[in-house]
Amino acid sequence: MGRGIAKRLLRKGFDVYGYNRSYEAVKDLAKSGLTPCSSPEELVRAINHPRVIWIMLPAGIAIDTTIKVLSGIMERGDCIIDGGNSDYRDSMTRYRNLEGKGIHFVDMGVSGGIWGEKEGYGLMFGAEKEVAEMILPLVHTLAPGENKGWVHTGPPGSGHYVKMVHNAIEYGMMQAYAEGFELMKKKKEFDLDLGTVSNAWRDGTVIRSWLLDLLAMYLGEDQELAEIIPKVADSGEARWALREAIDLDVSVPILANALFERFSSRNEEQYGDKILAIMRNAFGGHEIKKAD
Amino acid sequence: MGRGIAKRLLRKGFDVYGYNRSYEAVKDLAKSGLTPCSSPEELVRAINHPRVIWIMLPAGIAIDTTIKVLSGIMERGDCIIDGGNSDYRDSMTRYRNLEGKGIHFVDMGVSGGIWGEKEGYGLMFGAEKEVAEMILPLVHTLAPGENKGWVHTGPPGSGHYVKMVHNAIEYGMMQAYAEGFELMKKKKEFDLDLGTVSNAWRDGTVIRSWLLDLLAMYLGEDQELAEIIPKVADSGEARWALREAIDLDVSVPILANALFERFSSRNEEQYGDKILAIMRNAFGGHEIKKAD
Repeated sequence: MGRGIAKRLLRKGFDVYGYNRSYEAVKDLAKSGLTPCSSPEELVRAINHPRVIWIMLPAGIAIDTTIKVLSGIMERGDCIIDGGNSDYRDSMTRYRNLEGKGIHFVDMGVSGGIWGEKEGYGLMFGAEKEVAEMILPLVHTLAPGENKGWVHTGPPGSGHYVKMVHNAIEYGMMQAYAEGFELMKKKKEFDLDLGTVSNAWRDGTVIRSWLLDLLAMYLGEDQELAEIIPKVADSGEARWALREAIDLDVSVPILANALFERFSSRNEEQYGDKILAIMRNAFGGHEIKKAD
Repeated sequence: MGRGIAKRLLRKGFDVYGYNRSYEAVKDLAKSGLTPCSSPEELVRAINHPRVIWIMLPAGIAIDTTIKVLSGIMERGDCIIDGGNSDYRDSMTRYRNLEGKGIHFVDMGVSGGIWGEKEGYGLMFGAEKEVAEMILPLVHTLAPGENKGWVHTGPPGSGHYVKMVHNAIEYGMMQAYAEGFELMKKKKEFDLDLGTVSNAWRDGTVIRSWLLDLLAMYLGEDQELAEIIPKVADSGEARWALREAIDLDVSVPILANALFERFSSRNEEQYGDKILAIMRNAFGGHEIKKAD
């Protein structure tokens, strides 16, 4: 996603400098006008103060390591934006740590996936007011429009909180469609054409959405999905949202079940199901099937 | 919804005749060009053979009664369309019963609510092929476009099946948003402006949808919702979809929980919760609070 963000900024006239552990990755973007840097030091030196450095990394320790390196060579008044899906509590800690060094921090939730480069990214970010002002030109450019698709959610931490909730909703919506399409696929007697149905649903219905647009595109090509491996990853936000629901006493059955379905999809051992099988055998004599 | 359908047809040049138990309701539509009829007999006499009569009634016995009256005075080759959310199994029975009399039957799932009159309705209908051909001008006119927002799903029954699944997905999506917004509302420390957040989410994000557009419109006006009574009705489709999931061995936790949340929202007695309270008291001595 960092690639698409850099390309959108470059296309709209920004000067962009890039560093990646793989130099090839940033060198490849030189064709689009990016200035590739071979180290964080080179990157920081290349940019004029006050700098805005956007980090795009998986949640966790890699971000802390990167912030440590960068903040060691950046100056007071510079700004670090974490554009990944970080745990909002980590973002609050990082903000406080950087505050002591006079370096600004923005927790930037970014949505839109691979389509954002063209259509613009949905942006939700937490930042001090004056820092939000500082990065507005960037925000206006990355968003779908100067006045749409972005929100300064409030203080540092709130951006990743809102993004966490956004992704929790996404999990639930995806699971709702998934169940619906399985109900149609399994209804053999009607032999429904799911490509045509999903495409027709895109206009006029209550369930029309961008996710449905994408789904219709795939199902129009192939509705059997014979070659798709049905294991679904999760990248943390739904777990944090569920933890938050527990902390705030909010009942979230859809979120919980959408997350659990993903666990279940990857559960090759199925130990719990084996436990069910032996209990049914134990009390009712129901047959247990054993693998050869 | 029947009102909006009639008005859209009238605006696009159709001759529409209307009957309603309340004559005032159809008389009111005369301003829009509808010819009001004071009885089913008058309605049938007024229309030239082959007739297309669209029924818009709540699911259940009212539809059977109406079909009985109409089919007694309609002629072979006429057509009855059930545009409501009927149980698809009832629709299959009605089709078979009418087939014997030579009267066509279409089970027409209609989505789009009060917005359909202007934007067009999402239509999914089950019908014999030649009957589908017969009603195409009507379908093209009511849909958002001649080539979009409608699908002939297959044989009679399949239209209401697909509409049942559509509504099941709708329940899940609604509940996903509901949980997300509650997670934000309860996070007091960030004091999030849910009107602004929901509006920003409408562009560029993965969760953008028509439902979110409507939600943002409401939350932009009032995000406290202090005067909204939190009891949510359900009108049958999710129940049928859950029954269908049971018949077809499909795991549908999102559908089930979205429906159960609606039951729970209306559960004033909360007998189950009382049972929980007395059990906690029984084994752990936890305090039971009694109403005065």
